[in-house]
Amino acid sequence: MDREETSELERARRAFRAELLEAGLLVDTSVAGLYGRSGLFEDIVDGIDAVVRAAGPGASAARFRFPPVFPRTSFERTDYIASFPNLTGAINTFTGTNAEHAQLLAARADGESWDKWLEPTDTMLVSAACHPAYPMFTGVLPDGGALLDVYGYCFRHEPAFDPARMQAFRMHEFVRIGTADQAATHRDSWIERGLEVLSDLWLDAAPVAANDPFFGRVGRMLAANQREENLKTELTVRLYGDLDEGTAVVSCNCHQDHFGVTFDIATADGGVAHSACVGFGMERIALAMLRTHGMDPSRWPSAVKSRMSL
Amino acid sequence: MDREETSELERARRAFRAELLEAGLLVDTSVAGLYGRSGLFEDIVDGIDAVVRAAGPGASAARFRFPPVFPRTSFERTDYIASFPNLTGAINTFTGTNAEHAQLLAARADGESWDKWLEPTDTMLVSAACHPAYPMFTGVLPDGGALLDVYGYCFRHEPAFDPARMQAFRMHEFVRIGTADQAATHRDSWIERGLEVLSDLWLDAAPVAANDPFFGRVGRMLAANQREENLKTELTVRLYGDLDEGTAVVSCNCHQDHFGVTFDIATADGGVAHSACVGFGMERIALAMLRTHGMDPSRWPSAVKSRMSL
Repeated sequence: MDREETSELERARRAFRAELLEAGLLVDTSVAGLYGRSGLFEDIVDGIDAVVRAAGPGASAARFRFPPVFPRTSFERTDYIASFPNLTGAINTFTGTNAEHAQLLAARADGESWDKWLEPTDTMLVSAACHPAYPMFTGVLPDGGALLDVYGYCFRHEPAFDPARMQAFRMHEFVRIGTADQAATHRDSWIERGLEVLSDLWLDAAPVAANDPFFGRVGRMLAANQREENLKTELTVRLYGDLDEGTAVVSCNCHQDHFGVTFDIATADGGVAHSACVGFGMERIALAMLRTHGMDPSRWPSAVKSRMSL
Repeated sequence: MDREETSELERARRAFRAELLEAGLLVDTSVAGLYGRSGLFEDIVDGIDAVVRAAGPGASAARFRFPPVFPRTSFERTDYIASFPNLTGAINTFTGTNAEHAQLLAARADGESWDKWLEPTDTMLVSAACHPAYPMFTGVLPDGGALLDVYGYCFRHEPAFDPARMQAFRMHEFVRIGTADQAATHRDSWIERGLEVLSDLWLDAAPVAANDPFFGRVGRMLAANQREENLKTELTVRLYGDLDEGTAVVSCNCHQDHFGVTFDIATADGGVAHSACVGFGMERIALAMLRTHGMDPSRWPSAVKSRMSL
C-alpha cells in the first residue's frame, strides 16, 4: 500500500472517529483506542447480541461469564506472552509497608514514576473471551465434548486512532471442545452462520483467510502456518469502501489441539481434545452498523431494528 | 472479635463459598476471590438490575458504560494510589524488541519471572464504576448539574475466601454532580431508595455509618474523618446471622468537593462542584439473595421472581 492510500485511509478513520465522538456514541479519553460508551451505543450492542443469540446454540451451550481479569497461571498456559507480548496486560499492585508507601508518595510528589514500588499480582487481563474457560475442562471431557457460550471484555494493548481498533472491547464467543472433527465442523459451520448473522443485520460481509498478529520474526512463521493450514477465517465488512480490505468483525478459529495440550484436556475416548471458536466483535459490528446504516439508529431499516428489538 | 468468633465466621464463609461452587453458580479459579459466573448467576444479577433500574432515575440520567480499564492520568487525579495502594491494579505490557522478547522467553523457560521486561502502560484497572466518568465534566457543569447512570466491572486487589469479597465485581451507580446541596440530597435520598430496592427483593437490610478502607496510618485518620462527617452509609444484609455485623451490598457516598477539585469541575454559578453516588454491588446483592431465599432461584418467592423477571 503506498503512502497516498495510507493517508487517505487514515483520514477516513479519523473522520469516522470524530463523527462517533461528535454524535456522543463514544466518549473520548486521553488514551488512544479507549472509549466510554453512551447508552445508545450499548443499546446497539445489545441489539446486535439479540441477533447473535438467536443464531447461537441456545440452551444446548453452557453459558459462562468471566470477569476481565483471569489467573496468571492460566495466562501462562495459553503461551500468549510468547505469541503476543505487545498486546498483553499484566496487573501490578502495591504490597509494601507504610514506609514504602511513604516513599512511593514522595517519588510521586516529585513527579517521578512510582511503578517500581508495585509488584506483579497473580492476575492478567483477559485478551480473548474464551481463555478463562479452558481451565474448567482440564481432565476428561464428557461424551460429546463441550459447547460453551462466553461473553466478556477483552484487553489488547494496541493504541490506535482507528475506532475499530479498541484497547478494551467485548467478544461474544461460541466455543466447541471435543474431537478434531467436532472442532473443525464447529469452525466451518460458523463461517456460514456468522455470515447469516451479519446478513440479518443487513451488513455486506465476506469471509477472508486470516492470521493472528503474532509478534516478531518467529511470529511471521507462525502467521504463515496458520494461514496455510486455513485455521482462521475472518468475516469482514468494508467500512471505508475500497480504501482497505475491510474490517474483521467476526473471527472463526480452529485451534486444533493447542488448548487441549496446554490445558491437558482429553476427549471421552482418551485423545487430546481439539477446540474451535467463533468470536463476534461486538463493538466492531456496532461500528459497521453505524457506518452502513447511518449514525442515527432510529432511522435504520425497520426490518433490522425489529430484529435488534431497537 | 475474639478468635473463636473469627473462626466460626470464617467457617461459615467457606461453607457458603463451597455451596456456591457446588451449585455451579460460581466457577472456581486458582486465584482467591476471582470467579467465573454461570448463566444462572448472570440471570440473577440481571434480575436484580431490573429492580435497581426501576428505582433509578431512568431517562433523566445520562447513561454511560466504561470498559474495565481507564486512563492512568485520570487514576492519578483520583488520588487512589495515596488512599488505597494495596487495592490498585496497574497494567504493564511488553514494548521491547525481538531480542528483548527472546530474553524474556529464555528467562521464562528457566522458570524465572519475566515481569522485568514489561513497562507500565497508560491505563489502570477501574476500582469504582464512577471514576472514569468525572473527566467528562472537567469545566463548567450545565445548569442543574449532571445525573449519571454508570455500570461496570471494578477491580480491587484483595484476595479473600469470603465469597462477598471478590477481586472483580460489578457496580451499578447513580452519580450526581452539582451543588453541595444537590450532592447531599442525592446521597441522603438514596439511603431510603436503596433500602426500598432491597426490600423489593425481600432482603432484610439496615443502614450503617461506614468508612472506606484507607491504607495505613494516615488512612486511619481519613477513615475516622469520613465516619465523623457522616459521608458514607452502607446498606448491609446479614449473610451469617449474628456472626458479623452484616455485609455491605449498597453504598451511599458523599464526596463533597473531592472530585470537583481534582477534576476541576465547576457548577454553573462558578462554585467548585460537589458529587455523590449510590453504588449497588451486584454480586453482593446476588449472594444476599441466594443466602436469604435459597440456592435455587426457581423456588424463590414468586413476588420477588416476578419483580426480577426471572
